[in-house]
Amino acid sequence: MPLPLQPDLAALIAAVQPADAAAMQAARERQAQLTKPAGALGDLEDLAVRLAGVFGSARPDPRGVAVLVAAGDHGVAAGGVSAYPPEVTPAMVANFLADTPTGPGGAAVNAIARTVGARVYVMDAGVNADLPDHPALVRAARRRGTHDLRFGAAMSRPEAEALILAGAALARRAVEEGADLLVPGEMGIGNTTPAAALTARLLNLAPQAVTGRGTGVDDVTLRRKVEAVREALDRQGSDPADPLGVLADLGGFEIAAMLGMMLQAAALRRAVILDGFVEGSAALVGVALAPHLRDFLFPAGECAEVGHAAQLAHLGLKPLFRLGLRLGEGTGGVLAAPLLLSAAATLREMRTFAEAGVPGSGASSGVSGSGT
Amino acid sequence: MPLPLQPDLAALIAAVQPADAAAMQAARERQAQLTKPAGALGDLEDLAVRLAGVFGSARPDPRGVAVLVAAGDHGVAAGGVSAYPPEVTPAMVANFLADTPTGPGGAAVNAIARTVGARVYVMDAGVNADLPDHPALVRAARRRGTHDLRFGAAMSRPEAEALILAGAALARRAVEEGADLLVPGEMGIGNTTPAAALTARLLNLAPQAVTGRGTGVDDVTLRRKVEAVREALDRQGSDPADPLGVLADLGGFEIAAMLGMMLQAAALRRAVILDGFVEGSAALVGVALAPHLRDFLFPAGECAEVGHAAQLAHLGLKPLFRLGLRLGEGTGGVLAAPLLLSAAATLREMRTFAEAGVPGSGASSGVSGSGT
Repeated sequence: MPLPLQPDLAALIAAVQPADAAAMQAARERQAQLTKPAGALGDLEDLAVRLAGVFGSARPDPRGVAVLVAAGDHGVAAGGVSAYPPEVTPAMVANFLADTPTGPGGAAVNAIARTVGARVYVMDAGVNADLPDHPALVRAARRRGTHDLRFGAAMSRPEAEALILAGAALARRAVEEGADLLVPGEMGIGNTTPAAALTARLLNLAPQAVTGRGTGVDDVTLRRKVEAVREALDRQGSDPADPLGVLADLGGFEIAAMLGMMLQAAALRRAVILDGFVEGSAALVGVALAPHLRDFLFPAGECAEVGHAAQLAHLGLKPLFRLGLRLGEGTGGVLAAPLLLSAAATLREMRTFAEAGVPGSGASSGVSGSGT
Repeated sequence: MPLPLQPDLAALIAAVQPADAAAMQAARERQAQLTKPAGALGDLEDLAVRLAGVFGSARPDPRGVAVLVAAGDHGVAAGGVSAYPPEVTPAMVANFLADTPTGPGGAAVNAIARTVGARVYVMDAGVNADLPDHPALVRAARRRGTHDLRFGAAMSRPEAEALILAGAALARRAVEEGADLLVPGEMGIGNTTPAAALTARLLNLAPQAVTGRGTGVDDVTLRRKVEAVREALDRQGSDPADPLGVLADLGGFEIAAMLGMMLQAAALRRAVILDGFVEGSAALVGVALAPHLRDFLFPAGECAEVGHAAQLAHLGLKPLFRLGLRLGEGTGGVLAAPLLLSAAATLREMRTFAEAGVPGSGASSGVSGSGT
């Protein structure tokens, strides 16, 4: 039986309203008049229309990009489900924050974010270490790592709600500081195991269908990981009809935080770029709580993790690329940001054939870009 | 029998030397030490290593992006092979150059280039119109459109060579003005017909295997287009062993110009982002003339045009995305630029696990990004 939500969380969920259908219709009409053959921008055309719906304008003008990396540890890591020891989680948090000759942060997400002009935020959502103070580290940990989900709920419901609200607060701050496209990202040794458990429960799929190699585990570890997911599910600790209960039972602190980021971004009518499999598990909880969240989710690529395709299919989202990424950190989401910005720019900045005085095709009002 | 090349062109071709194998090896060794699981950046890892080879450094640092849009008309357009009238070519050139409220140019390539910070160059390679003077228009036309390739060579060999050298000159200028990543782009009503003819001859493929719908022709027009390609090939006006002869026989002025851009960029050891099917036909001529050109070519997406996949397979290049683009103008290439810049940035800016003090996996020297 679901407990009542904290008032703040209930309000946050209620604030997720549908995208602006009138703006989308206006965008479609405008798109048909732009100086290009109909459909010639392929998948960018639908992307642009969806962005019009998010930003409430046929000429959407998103600017700032922010990646919000939440880090957390996982009790299940003790079960040997990862190729890496849990000590990597705090070490990578330090790496995200490090001073380097080229700027703050020495991880992949930092390098890519600098390239595309995205701002990086780092949150301790529940790392199992004494993290040194750093002005750019957002502290939101309630506990140093989740309980081992093989044996009991990963966290309590109040803990889950607290982390959701902490993620929401960081998203609000990022928006206040200029972000229109938000990329929730994550770091947490062991976290594809809870992501697989969440996906299996919420989509009613078998453990082996959603449990992959994460950072690259070998066959023996993969079997152990599938078994861990099966044990967690077999406890029957949660009911898919109670998404928050499922999150507390099978999730992770950084997953809860990313869920909060997504809900808050949608409530503020900003676009969420959905990176990989762990982010996808947060999104599954999110659309179960607030179905309109889906309108604000924009997939990056399809990552290498098995189970990601099932998540995207459930969400009804088509990935932009398949580059075989399996790094996490929000890297794929940041890579996708220029594609979203470009799609919006075509709708916003291209001239119509009337404005440009370009003749149309014989049959239609369209106009050529190039080639035929 | 091939005529001797103009000395300048022969020198240009000879200047295309292999990528730097030592830098690529150093890049691979560095990549294995970066703070991420081995292979976790997927296709970006090979991309980064190839960029190391182009720029001769294990920490490649490409910066400026330029798209060079060559426009030309085609005699074969009189044969009804396009959904659009030839008047669209000069009208789109004017659109590329127009003053708009958001900046210069009202076409898709302008909007996308502004978004990713790419500079746009526009060249009249042989448009069939009196183009008004414009400070940003590069004039290189020798003739107002090619001859109809159904009935004879599209251009003379000296014309082809002149346009190649004009494209090379523009690429040189773009590099001098800061470009490290060059995107040849094109505009020319009818130009997927010569691109198909070039591809068919150079890859020894049947017309229907390489002739597509371009900007979106209907079935009747597609049949006419396949027939035009067949007529052009049946003239037996050129021999695949003489790539320049094939270009003159079956090509287009903007295709020749793009070939020159590619050769010059490679000679100056800059990366070429290869956009769509028409660009691909120039690249096929290019690697036939200078096999090492391939080292400097980086595919953007696979475009919607049938025949593009065969080009990429011949070139041994794996596309970065499949967004169903079929616009031309270099749009796909500009969209891909942030992915190349990001790949280079990971190699250049990420810390190694030793620098970051991150513990490795049990089995290897690797290190985790996220997830497991």
